[in-house]
Amino acid sequence: MRTILIIGAGKSASQLVNYLLDKASTENLEVIVGDISLENAQKLVGNHPKGKAMKLDVFNKDQRTKAIQNATIVISMLPARFHIEVARDCITYSKSMVTASYISKEMEALDEAVKEKGLVFMNEIGLDPGIDHMSAMQVIDRIRDNGGKLVLFESFTGGLVAPESDTNLWNYKFTWNPRNVVLAGQGGAAEFIQEGTYKYIPYQRLFRRTEFLEIEGHGRFEAYANRNSLKYRSIYGLDDIKTLYRGTIRRVGFSKAWHIFVMMGMTDDSYTLQDTENMSYRSFLNLFLPYSPTDSVELKLRHYLKIDQDDLLWDKLVELDIFNPNKKIGIKNATPAKCLQRILEDKWTLEPDDKDMIVMYHKFGYELNGEHKQIDATMVNIGNDQIETAMARTVGLPVAMATLRILNGEITTPGVQLPIKKEVYTPILKELETFGITFKEYEVPYLGYNPNNVGG
Amino acid sequence: MRTILIIGAGKSASQLVNYLLDKASTENLEVIVGDISLENAQKLVGNHPKGKAMKLDVFNKDQRTKAIQNATIVISMLPARFHIEVARDCITYSKSMVTASYISKEMEALDEAVKEKGLVFMNEIGLDPGIDHMSAMQVIDRIRDNGGKLVLFESFTGGLVAPESDTNLWNYKFTWNPRNVVLAGQGGAAEFIQEGTYKYIPYQRLFRRTEFLEIEGHGRFEAYANRNSLKYRSIYGLDDIKTLYRGTIRRVGFSKAWHIFVMMGMTDDSYTLQDTENMSYRSFLNLFLPYSPTDSVELKLRHYLKIDQDDLLWDKLVELDIFNPNKKIGIKNATPAKCLQRILEDKWTLEPDDKDMIVMYHKFGYELNGEHKQIDATMVNIGNDQIETAMARTVGLPVAMATLRILNGEITTPGVQLPIKKEVYTPILKELETFGITFKEYEVPYLGYNPNNVGG
Repeated sequence: MRTILIIGAGKSASQLVNYLLDKASTENLEVIVGDISLENAQKLVGNHPKGKAMKLDVFNKDQRTKAIQNATIVISMLPARFHIEVARDCITYSKSMVTASYISKEMEALDEAVKEKGLVFMNEIGLDPGIDHMSAMQVIDRIRDNGGKLVLFESFTGGLVAPESDTNLWNYKFTWNPRNVVLAGQGGAAEFIQEGTYKYIPYQRLFRRTEFLEIEGHGRFEAYANRNSLKYRSIYGLDDIKTLYRGTIRRVGFSKAWHIFVMMGMTDDSYTLQDTENMSYRSFLNLFLPYSPTDSVELKLRHYLKIDQDDLLWDKLVELDIFNPNKKIGIKNATPAKCLQRILEDKWTLEPDDKDMIVMYHKFGYELNGEHKQIDATMVNIGNDQIETAMARTVGLPVAMATLRILNGEITTPGVQLPIKKEVYTPILKELETFGITFKEYEVPYLGYNPNNVGG
Repeated sequence: MRTILIIGAGKSASQLVNYLLDKASTENLEVIVGDISLENAQKLVGNHPKGKAMKLDVFNKDQRTKAIQNATIVISMLPARFHIEVARDCITYSKSMVTASYISKEMEALDEAVKEKGLVFMNEIGLDPGIDHMSAMQVIDRIRDNGGKLVLFESFTGGLVAPESDTNLWNYKFTWNPRNVVLAGQGGAAEFIQEGTYKYIPYQRLFRRTEFLEIEGHGRFEAYANRNSLKYRSIYGLDDIKTLYRGTIRRVGFSKAWHIFVMMGMTDDSYTLQDTENMSYRSFLNLFLPYSPTDSVELKLRHYLKIDQDDLLWDKLVELDIFNPNKKIGIKNATPAKCLQRILEDKWTLEPDDKDMIVMYHKFGYELNGEHKQIDATMVNIGNDQIETAMARTVGLPVAMATLRILNGEITTPGVQLPIKKEVYTPILKELETFGITFKEYEVPYLGYNPNNVGG
């Protein structure tokens, strides 16, 4: 009997737990879910004979170390900043570990100790980061193995609402942490490289520099730049690549409307406002507009940001009820970002029957035998309901699959890892296909950004 | 013989030292200037028999404490963050102290200890903060003494180039620390209150929300909002005031053009760029524009920020030579803000014969006997040359005058102070007039922002 300890029973753990419980008999597993809320943990394991829920406070050292000691392998589904104590205990008690989070500096620093003990600490093996790494590296390695040289890599991911549940003008609902959506793009300029030229987009222009993406059968999307694309040069071994860009996918028109909030200062999370509890949505909006004794908030906003009478983004604002003088924010001492989140949650919260949708799009430009070629790869995955969301599926399944393979000695390279090696991505991508997580590949003409190599 | 120790021999200390040396015989003073550069200190005292220059490293505790022990009173003209060690020594050795800087939290915390020793720590007694406090409080106190009630206070200050030296399209040159000009307005939204409504302007809109000011004989100016106007409510005793706004003065058109740099992300100081040493001005600009193999930087910029063909701000950009492909930044690992500063310094540095100009504008709206009234007060001061600048004069003279009055027992209220009391501002404003630093007052019709009390 092998014991898998899963710490953290959040939304994203449901498919992960199901997968492991389904394999429990054939693989001889015991699946223990530990969470600060015993109830949440119990919900995930249900009555499964091989499942066990426990109350686990990760800040209680005794509880934590005892649970880790008793496990064969540990999965941490905690928020990223809480992994490190779990990781240190895993080294002490010689347990391998799996997370879906970016490798932090603290985690990176454990690499040597993890290697010394011959353990595998697999990180970044959810959706993004995770499936993006694996699906990109599979194509990149294939191109290289065939003698090609990468010149362009662009990668885009989005968590959206499925078309059948898409009922608002923004074509968007919160399928994940709303706070991250409101704060997206803040904290520094987006950096990337295009045709060998470094490019920087400050937050105040980020949502006006989108590009379009077309996915067969799913229509048109847009993408805005992620903050740091450049670090993928070294991770993917693309140090000489001319174009490297990573972005976030939305439906067309979202970013142009979102830009209004950015320019108004409504996404700012750095200071608190006065008396937000009793403030109306309309008064909140008016905080950011010039004072006038007579002009309406509507006219002031149109004039301030030069919004034409017939611009469709206006309807998006109206739909949010943001001009409503009666609806109250109802949160004490809130920041502008918190107020905006409150307003958006009224309209962008998933209904019980709503489905979410994950969209991923990679572009690989390369040279082979003197010719420029391009492969585009796309993945669209739609959730079943609000439990089996596409997000929980695409985050949880790769984590579960990697865990089982480490346990079975199929993934063996020791150290603090991410899933960019064939031994990891080949079997996992293959198994993900059996769950309907599939990439379509297209050979397309290579255009790049400078097809005729002119100008500068 | 009383010994005045001046720590820090920067630009702003010249008039201060001159003033005190001029009074040295009649007031029985010895004036010691201590600076990390003995040469700089010597320049300031010259051959004056009552002046003495010394090398003083403020981080050398022995040197610092010895110099303070030997002084009767201490003036710190160091950058604000370095005052605190001097202040602590002044308490230890029972010396009063004067600075032109905002009271920091650390300084504020010394209040009780300063009072216990019966010392005066006078701060914020330069230009802004300084002359602004004194000239505002003089009018505010007079209105109150006459039974009036303040309903509006707006205050604007600018350090500009004098008209006779104004030779560029921006009508601006660096008369003070260029870095502060490039970073102005960053670090949080501007907060103020208008007709009882709180208003917030984020950095990305700050330079598009200017208002105009007219000064008799000097033409039109514009002002953008300072970050924190609201703290002046408690400092000036204006807690119930309906309108409170503080701003920075520029010549008309400056802000609209500066907004281009803000939107491009060229004022960002939070990250460094690659290979800035060999980067041309044109390439620097191009970092923030979309890639194109054929379109010019000029067209991309016009299109990106929708700058009309005939917009005069374009000429301002051309004048800075920012499209030049040959001029190099020439600084290693520079931030965007540092690169921009480098470009601006080419064009905005004062010529040897150039004169600077200080402009201050206050508006006081009040109710008296059921009527609304308004007083506007303006001050314009022009420098003589690059040594006797208006900036050094308006910063240094109030510091010197306050120091002498503390020494002579005319300013006596103990504690960590700023110049808002009559005992301070009345004699100093009067003496400043003898140096040509004079306010003109105008009774104007009160308009406020809502003269008919309509709307909302």
